[in-house]
Amino acid sequence: MAKITAISGFPEYLPAEQKVFSQMMDTIRHHYELYGFSQIETPAVERIDTLSAKGGNEKEIYALRRLAAQEGEKDEKDLALHFDLTVPLARYVAQHYGQLSYPFKRYQMQPVWRGERPQAGRYRQFYQCDIDVIGNESLPVYYDAEIIALIYKTIKALNIGDFVIRLNNRKALQGMLSAFDIPEDKIAQAIKVIDDIEKVPAETTAERLTNLGSSQAEELLTWFNLDTDNFGRLKAYKDLDGNDMLEEGVSELTTVYEALLALDVPESAFKIDPAIARGLDYYTGTVYETNLVEHKDLGSISSGGRYQDLIGKFSNKNCPGVGGSIGLTRLFPELVKRGIISIDVPVGADVFVTAMDDSQMPHYIKIAEKLRNAGIKTEVLMEKKKFDKQMKLADKKGCKLALIMGEDEINSQQVTIKNLTDGQQQSTTEADLISTVKSLLK
Amino acid sequence: MAKITAISGFPEYLPAEQKVFSQMMDTIRHHYELYGFSQIETPAVERIDTLSAKGGNEKEIYALRRLAAQEGEKDEKDLALHFDLTVPLARYVAQHYGQLSYPFKRYQMQPVWRGERPQAGRYRQFYQCDIDVIGNESLPVYYDAEIIALIYKTIKALNIGDFVIRLNNRKALQGMLSAFDIPEDKIAQAIKVIDDIEKVPAETTAERLTNLGSSQAEELLTWFNLDTDNFGRLKAYKDLDGNDMLEEGVSELTTVYEALLALDVPESAFKIDPAIARGLDYYTGTVYETNLVEHKDLGSISSGGRYQDLIGKFSNKNCPGVGGSIGLTRLFPELVKRGIISIDVPVGADVFVTAMDDSQMPHYIKIAEKLRNAGIKTEVLMEKKKFDKQMKLADKKGCKLALIMGEDEINSQQVTIKNLTDGQQQSTTEADLISTVKSLLK
Repeated sequence: MAKITAISGFPEYLPAEQKVFSQMMDTIRHHYELYGFSQIETPAVERIDTLSAKGGNEKEIYALRRLAAQEGEKDEKDLALHFDLTVPLARYVAQHYGQLSYPFKRYQMQPVWRGERPQAGRYRQFYQCDIDVIGNESLPVYYDAEIIALIYKTIKALNIGDFVIRLNNRKALQGMLSAFDIPEDKIAQAIKVIDDIEKVPAETTAERLTNLGSSQAEELLTWFNLDTDNFGRLKAYKDLDGNDMLEEGVSELTTVYEALLALDVPESAFKIDPAIARGLDYYTGTVYETNLVEHKDLGSISSGGRYQDLIGKFSNKNCPGVGGSIGLTRLFPELVKRGIISIDVPVGADVFVTAMDDSQMPHYIKIAEKLRNAGIKTEVLMEKKKFDKQMKLADKKGCKLALIMGEDEINSQQVTIKNLTDGQQQSTTEADLISTVKSLLK
Repeated sequence: MAKITAISGFPEYLPAEQKVFSQMMDTIRHHYELYGFSQIETPAVERIDTLSAKGGNEKEIYALRRLAAQEGEKDEKDLALHFDLTVPLARYVAQHYGQLSYPFKRYQMQPVWRGERPQAGRYRQFYQCDIDVIGNESLPVYYDAEIIALIYKTIKALNIGDFVIRLNNRKALQGMLSAFDIPEDKIAQAIKVIDDIEKVPAETTAERLTNLGSSQAEELLTWFNLDTDNFGRLKAYKDLDGNDMLEEGVSELTTVYEALLALDVPESAFKIDPAIARGLDYYTGTVYETNLVEHKDLGSISSGGRYQDLIGKFSNKNCPGVGGSIGLTRLFPELVKRGIISIDVPVGADVFVTAMDDSQMPHYIKIAEKLRNAGIKTEVLMEKKKFDKQMKLADKKGCKLALIMGEDEINSQQVTIKNLTDGQQQSTTEADLISTVKSLLK
């Protein structure tokens, strides 16, 4: 017999966990649609040269091969599983460029695969829940605020505790580093240093920045810990000795700040934070990360930002974009483990029709069908078991009501309804069944 | 630049098509849940020895390899993409056996992959929408009827025209073949002949059955074309010279027939059809296929049946089951091509807030947010364009209402609402906006 064990890195849930996971996916989807984003799905597979067009990801790519491929067969050799949803989006926009309306607001919620070496906490298959707005030639910075506001509303609706969206602008950061004497050709390295600022001691960061040419590394560092609010931090940015890059970045950041307030995002939910850099190449303006206040060790649960050029590798069109992503697969088991969400949820129907008498099965089925026609989730146990066992099963499935129809009830067109939450029983007629059940389920 | 062309066999939709496809998936999911089925998802990947435990599918299997795998690296060598959802279900039940409640009613809607040679109409990635009920030791035949009734309700709700579920029982078929002198050791071959009955001339079938030992091949053949109704066909089955296998099968078929009527499935929607055989090995009792009445050339759009032993390859538990599947990916483009479903659907929000004045953007955003807080799907164009262009965009996205707020309107707290369906305009106050929009969207 084939041995059955879990495959490391490929999560799988029992029905109750799956239900909560799917409900969270539905909440995300609902909010994405509320803001006018429309869904796309791309195949799990892209060409390898598409996936590696931006370079650097070879290690993570799972290529396909037909198990029964003939020697020298070529047709599948160039296919591999996507490792994110951004490269597929770029390919999609390039391929269907003329058939899309701009700004193109799309959401995409699919698994992605990364060929990582198996180790604890590393997923080799995980869902990404992405939103992006893609412009044609231009895209106002207001869309950056919309993405962040939407991420705020969505995570808020997930009801997983307080969180803070940490917000910055890459141009402002670069301009600030220039203002503190980091030479042009060291900016990229300095951003890497800032990216690590929370992982290393302050002295190490200061030393690194000094080595990169800053004569004011200490002052620069205190700047990352200003004891003030968003307005104060924005003002500090504005008050810095100017350069064009800085001014452009600060102006964008100001627009985003004001738009977030117009979009009802409370000041307590976001923080302008110059230490947010988001890696090196991709982002060109707004960048953000999101942390749960009480669970910072989980790292960022949603991040994203503005990029100048989505499809440059695939097309000569100029399509700037801004996007965000919620990484639900990594987050979900931690939320369960820490008791932030409960997986003690019903997995069965609301109403459980018991099997009191095998010969009455057509009657039970008919009653169940009546309830379903009224939109009530109903299941029928279609094999008589001991009553206790039936109640246990209904309880395990989380059904709310059990219908009991023995010979007497059937002859008098009555139904006994047992409330599985409090154990109370009541009788009703078949004619009143639907309205009684509906009121009990309210 | 990387060349961008579609990859044969991996379907991808534009937003409007995707929306209709997703709505159909939602309809299916809704009905599956209405009958008390709970969702599971299994990873895209299984071990190769799991996938090939039942044998015969090697050709279709896409195995994975890490693109950057080291020479001699072994850890990924045994992983491959699932080619259906039945083998993963069997593995899931075997792996989580003790943690599930029986009968275990699960649905699963995921893509599967088959490493077919590219050719027209062949999909290498497609969605399956499966339901199965898995028993522990036993499972009454009533569940067979429930599966078929649920498939009926679901396809009916998809609103894709008249269809007929063709229903049979493998035991009844086998018993009938015995009754017509096919010897025990030729039954499997005879079932293959019946499976092909619609593809070859009647004489060929008669000749084949004669060659397999039947002395009454002509009579047997007329039997497949009885000019009668379901009751008549069931009676004909019952009236055949008996054997145990036949009696058992006919008894099951009778139970299914009566339960389908109790479940409100109209006689016109299903047909007891002795020519339905469904291949060779897997099914052991009830079998069904489904055809669109006006589009028989599409082949079966949903099929399934009863199997004696789901997990025998992975466990020594005895788990009989019954299931059905809707193959939406293959069906969908044909429904579109034949005009059975329309993809002329809105892909944007219901309300489109126009950009009349860039300096008023925070006001537009605020208004939009108010509508969203009332649950109304709303998008804001955040870059001023010519009014005509804005109307075209809103129309292309299928938005229903456009809000227009110039300086005058804003100063007097008014909003002009343009109905994009009939072009009518009306004015309302900001205070009345939500109620006005809601009544216009009704």
